[in-house]
Amino acid sequence: MGASILSDFGAEILIPVCAVIGIAFSLVQWVLVSKVKLSPGRESVNNGSGAKNGYSDYLIEEEEGLNDHSVVLKCAEIQSAISEGATSFLFTEYQYVGIFMVAFAILIFLFLGSVEGFTSKSQPCTYDKSKICKPALATAAFSTISFLLGAITSVVSGFLGMKIATYANARTTLEARKGVGKAFITAFRSGAVMGFLLAANGLLVLYIAINLFKLYYGDDWSGLFEAITGYGLGGSSMALFGRVGGGIYTKAADVGADLVGKVERNIPEDDPRNPAVIADNVGDNVGDIAGMGSDLFGSYAESSCAALVVASISSFGINHELTPMLYPLIISSVGIIVCLITTLFATDFFEIKAVKEIEPSLKRQLIISTVLMTIGIGIVSWIALPSSFTIFNFGDQKAVKNWQLFLCVAVGLWAGLIIGFVTEYYTSNAYSPVQDVADSCRTGAATNVIFGLALGYKSCIIPIFAIAISIFVSFSFAAMYGIAVAALGMLSTIATGLAIDAYGPISDNAGGIAEMAGMSHRIRERTDALDAAGNTTAAIGKVSSCFRLSMTLISSFISVWHNKFVLHFQGFAIGSAALVSLALFGAFVSRAAISTVDVLTPKVFIGLLVGAMLPYWFSAMTMKSVGSAALKMVEEVRRQFNTIPGLMEGTTKPDYATCVKISTDASIKEMIPPGALVMLTPLVVGIFFGVETLSGVLAGSLVSGVQIAISASNTGGAWDNAKKYIEAGASTHAKSLGPKGSDPHKAAVIGDTIGDPLKDTSGPSLNILIKLMAVESLVFAPFFATHGGLLFKLF
Amino acid sequence: MGASILSDFGAEILIPVCAVIGIAFSLVQWVLVSKVKLSPGRESVNNGSGAKNGYSDYLIEEEEGLNDHSVVLKCAEIQSAISEGATSFLFTEYQYVGIFMVAFAILIFLFLGSVEGFTSKSQPCTYDKSKICKPALATAAFSTISFLLGAITSVVSGFLGMKIATYANARTTLEARKGVGKAFITAFRSGAVMGFLLAANGLLVLYIAINLFKLYYGDDWSGLFEAITGYGLGGSSMALFGRVGGGIYTKAADVGADLVGKVERNIPEDDPRNPAVIADNVGDNVGDIAGMGSDLFGSYAESSCAALVVASISSFGINHELTPMLYPLIISSVGIIVCLITTLFATDFFEIKAVKEIEPSLKRQLIISTVLMTIGIGIVSWIALPSSFTIFNFGDQKAVKNWQLFLCVAVGLWAGLIIGFVTEYYTSNAYSPVQDVADSCRTGAATNVIFGLALGYKSCIIPIFAIAISIFVSFSFAAMYGIAVAALGMLSTIATGLAIDAYGPISDNAGGIAEMAGMSHRIRERTDALDAAGNTTAAIGKVSSCFRLSMTLISSFISVWHNKFVLHFQGFAIGSAALVSLALFGAFVSRAAISTVDVLTPKVFIGLLVGAMLPYWFSAMTMKSVGSAALKMVEEVRRQFNTIPGLMEGTTKPDYATCVKISTDASIKEMIPPGALVMLTPLVVGIFFGVETLSGVLAGSLVSGVQIAISASNTGGAWDNAKKYIEAGASTHAKSLGPKGSDPHKAAVIGDTIGDPLKDTSGPSLNILIKLMAVESLVFAPFFATHGGLLFKLF
Repeated sequence: MGASILSDFGAEILIPVCAVIGIAFSLVQWVLVSKVKLSPGRESVNNGSGAKNGYSDYLIEEEEGLNDHSVVLKCAEIQSAISEGATSFLFTEYQYVGIFMVAFAILIFLFLGSVEGFTSKSQPCTYDKSKICKPALATAAFSTISFLLGAITSVVSGFLGMKIATYANARTTLEARKGVGKAFITAFRSGAVMGFLLAANGLLVLYIAINLFKLYYGDDWSGLFEAITGYGLGGSSMALFGRVGGGIYTKAADVGADLVGKVERNIPEDDPRNPAVIADNVGDNVGDIAGMGSDLFGSYAESSCAALVVASISSFGINHELTPMLYPLIISSVGIIVCLITTLFATDFFEIKAVKEIEPSLKRQLIISTVLMTIGIGIVSWIALPSSFTIFNFGDQKAVKNWQLFLCVAVGLWAGLIIGFVTEYYTSNAYSPVQDVADSCRTGAATNVIFGLALGYKSCIIPIFAIAISIFVSFSFAAMYGIAVAALGMLSTIATGLAIDAYGPISDNAGGIAEMAGMSHRIRERTDALDAAGNTTAAIGKVSSCFRLSMTLISSFISVWHNKFVLHFQGFAIGSAALVSLALFGAFVSRAAISTVDVLTPKVFIGLLVGAMLPYWFSAMTMKSVGSAALKMVEEVRRQFNTIPGLMEGTTKPDYATCVKISTDASIKEMIPPGALVMLTPLVVGIFFGVETLSGVLAGSLVSGVQIAISASNTGGAWDNAKKYIEAGASTHAKSLGPKGSDPHKAAVIGDTIGDPLKDTSGPSLNILIKLMAVESLVFAPFFATHGGLLFKLF
Repeated sequence: MGASILSDFGAEILIPVCAVIGIAFSLVQWVLVSKVKLSPGRESVNNGSGAKNGYSDYLIEEEEGLNDHSVVLKCAEIQSAISEGATSFLFTEYQYVGIFMVAFAILIFLFLGSVEGFTSKSQPCTYDKSKICKPALATAAFSTISFLLGAITSVVSGFLGMKIATYANARTTLEARKGVGKAFITAFRSGAVMGFLLAANGLLVLYIAINLFKLYYGDDWSGLFEAITGYGLGGSSMALFGRVGGGIYTKAADVGADLVGKVERNIPEDDPRNPAVIADNVGDNVGDIAGMGSDLFGSYAESSCAALVVASISSFGINHELTPMLYPLIISSVGIIVCLITTLFATDFFEIKAVKEIEPSLKRQLIISTVLMTIGIGIVSWIALPSSFTIFNFGDQKAVKNWQLFLCVAVGLWAGLIIGFVTEYYTSNAYSPVQDVADSCRTGAATNVIFGLALGYKSCIIPIFAIAISIFVSFSFAAMYGIAVAALGMLSTIATGLAIDAYGPISDNAGGIAEMAGMSHRIRERTDALDAAGNTTAAIGKVSSCFRLSMTLISSFISVWHNKFVLHFQGFAIGSAALVSLALFGAFVSRAAISTVDVLTPKVFIGLLVGAMLPYWFSAMTMKSVGSAALKMVEEVRRQFNTIPGLMEGTTKPDYATCVKISTDASIKEMIPPGALVMLTPLVVGIFFGVETLSGVLAGSLVSGVQIAISASNTGGAWDNAKKYIEAGASTHAKSLGPKGSDPHKAAVIGDTIGDPLKDTSGPSLNILIKLMAVESLVFAPFFATHGGLLFKLF
């Protein structure tokens, strides 16, 4: 056995130091981004109001072609519109979700408190009857507190992410005038602000909570870490609403804007004449940034909780060896440092000079972080673990060596990388699968959809094998604890992942702002040209076209990139969700004191069957929600085009606010049924059918949900990139399918629109479905074990 | 305990008598159908050659408007083209599959023979060591024989079904001239010929095989019924190739024909100018008839085998009580009689006079057969079972009363009916789900696809609950035996189901023949009108338009009906597949001597995960196959339209044969990879990973496959009927979306085309995937248990 090399005091210091370094690094990046000024150079004006009145004042200066203040102000104006829309949506969302959270917190307290009849007396421990453990009432109270803590941290993570993104988008647009490298660094630094802030924040809050709870729990570590599981549940349930609500918001706006704008009116993406354009850009921030931030925070919190709760009943949990107990947190701490070094490779060690260097640079980020992290895991496993220890495996004991645990973490880390690259292979238009899908557009939308669906199904194969192998290896070495740390391994480079992932929507928004600012400008040209002198117009035209050229450049690299990496990351998020969910499932089974989950018992089998159906039910809800909301949006956009005179000509402004309101209302209303399905299923099944059936439901929804999530994301991504492949026309083959507006391109646009809810709403939400049901079952396990299975008890 | 009321001799007589009655009834129906003559009334001409030369001879007679011989001959000509195409495809298919079957038969013999090292000495029995059982070599030999027997019976079933259908289609067309009732009865009787022939034939062969095998096995019933499982495997593996090959054939032709004909050239469905039209009609017969016939025969054979093998180790198996042992076969026998009575309700007790009476009449068939069968099951359970008996449940014993077993069968029967009606609700355009999908066509193909996919996902909910309840009830009462008989209950009215199901493609073909014959006629009019006298043309015009009117009528009710009931039945086939597969899974687990399939062991869990992925892999293969084959077809059809002069004008005939060849070649080539996936997976997993992992794979593919099968079928069906809803324009709402050629209609056509491979290729094939893997595992169970799990043994 033997103790670990790192002392308990060392571990207690290492974790908060790493977290603080992460936060400090995040602040440094923020300061660097904020150096890009959104107000005209020489004087400071009030952007919000100044932009409107100051417009004509600065127009003359553009003749010089140097300091086009009107563009700066226009960008600032658009940015503030997007930021306001996003803030107002998030506040509305948080109000509704807040009520739910309070209600659910009360439920947690009552249900868990009822396990021992609300007695405040200490009880003999479950795992060791000779010891005295804290009462269930304490677990109830602390679970409720950690639930609320998780929920609040998640909200803050999402909200800060959104604020940073909306702060950075216009700055990226403006930096783009100075070149590709500048724009890239601004967008990437902003992503890093978010990535490091979230990762460090999540770690720090968890660390503080554990230390505070320990003041009460003392030596009752199993009670302590059971109470901590509430943190995962809180984070994850907020993530659910964030993902679903944000996903519906963004896709209702996107689909609505595209269906009328691109298909019917034949105007470009992000054209300011489209009434849904602001809603669409708001959607990127609330869906892809805030939703995704909450989601990954949730994954991180859950995998940490799963690892901790399983570890609490291992040999170092029982012997109170703090350093190995905190191994999961130390892994995450080292992850922050590794990601910090990795980020320097992108922002400081190398300089990006051309668009084509961006993709290799980001890919390098993924590979560097994985390689460095492997070394990091090795060191942590060597210094923070005893050379050998025992863990419990559903009643049995299992001896584990430290190198075996290293392999568990490493297999998760590398499986994540593989899944990411497989996702890229199936969704990037650099490879044959997407090119085949693009080719099938020749014969129309129908064959495009058939090929796209087939591609999505096929793309499940390798990721599933990668996940299966990780599960097998980590389970064989260290049972459920192995799986929990494998999930942590996959998530250990979360800061880099988040930075890359957040970079996408920021750049996307930057492109949108460019289009809107530039396009208004061009419209301005037209209308002004009627009055102004010829030379003025020409000069404006020159500046404008130069501006627009750089914008087009940026927005093209952005959009090609966007899906490639977002999807890369999505595949990875699904993989980690599968592992996290399985680890939580294992922890649930331990806590509910079930020894086997036998498929051959009818209770379990019907659970498995119904569980496998849940992702379908959930997808049906979310897809239909997007469809209905998009239909409303289409009607509104059509109405505006038909009734507002001068809209198509660009002489009148559309009514952006109504479209923002439609998206907001629809997403708030529509997120409730799928949210309720996920949150209530474990409760209903646990209470009426008991823990065996619930085990079946968890296993069923896990194995079925992973497949739908992967295929939905990849199908959607492939359609998106097939469309872009045709639009870009980079090869002879692509040219033969294009240009924009050709029949194959129209077919590709239909596929892209179908893919939107698949890849951005139902696909990513399924990750949360499978994790959340597992963590909820884990939190309520003692209640179900005591009072559950009413229906079977009755008959 | 006590003995059953029905004596062993009685049971031995009852089964073959019922089977013979079924066959006799089938022959009577055939004689009735054959009374419709396909040669002109007064004289007998050689249809094949006479049709071509005799054409102009009879044209004069049409002036009278009474006996339009040319139409009769034309129909005969088209029918023979379809029949020839179908026969030639099936022969080609059987050649390839034949080679596979022989190879697989050898494999079965070698693998099962190797269990006891090819010794021909008898061994102590597994279940009772005091007795002597036949050697594994005998089981190997008899399993091989029963495998071949099952394969041949399946081939014969599919082939006869196809022959009957192609015999009946033109006759239905001709009868349609006399009225709706006549056409309905002809099509329905033909369906009945097939339904009764298949059901009775399957039962009789199984009965004879059991009795012959008993001559060798004597008292070793467990060995006897283990050997009989080969029958299910043979039937099912033929069904796989039939379904996949036929499904690819029919959809390649259908999608290809529609994409060019309807979308590009704007000519109606089944227009004789379309070069793919014959291939399309051939496809209906080889896919929907031969494939479906083999599929249902496979289901029937498998559920009987599962019930028998589980029963063989129950108290009546061990005590050699023949009557209760043959309970599954007696249920099927009574089912034939019940279906016979039910059929009389459709053909003799009531007369169909209008199109709108057809649907209620067919629905009545389903309800009548279910009600009568419930009574039948009650009687059989009362007379053929002891009042109480014991069955084995993975080591435990379980006492079962006869009324409990009655409930098991009945719950399966009624669950089937419910699943059918839910399927109808989601796919019929009489209800809101399909109308909503139709409505979403307003905003284009993309929203149509989004709503359609969501509908398919949603339609899983109730069927899954129905299946889960059946499983729970039947499992609680009688463990795996209960599930096996529940599956039998669902399939007990198979003859009526097959009759209704076969009726669909027959009517569809009849409509196609009408269109082709009528249309050639009209084209004839045009060309002839140039020479002929005015009054002749007018008379021809009159006859022709009357003929075409009745055709349109028939083909419209047919097509509305077609999908409604085929899908009704498809839902039902999926439900029964789930139960059959679970029963086989249970039998496999018993035979492989596994006591628990614990999800919490890594071996099982990775099996579960990979198993859940297999239906996606399989669907990806089949959908891509249809897509590629359709692309080839599209190119050929386009080529013909572009290069053959006078094709669009109808003055030259297209080259049908090339299109038939494309479909044939594509389907033969493309059926191999998905077939290999399904057939090899159990072997690879069993040999390398062992029986635990294989159990996981079976459970995973079952719970995941059922969902995809249901959602794929229903999504496809909903799109199809949404299109028909718009085309029919029966309500104000429907009219507002139409007419044909409007934008919403075009969007609906795209949805319909996407749905084709989903509902007719990958969806129905998934039934077979889940059943076949289970039955294959069951057959090879002793081999895997002895020699399997190589990989785990190595490490």
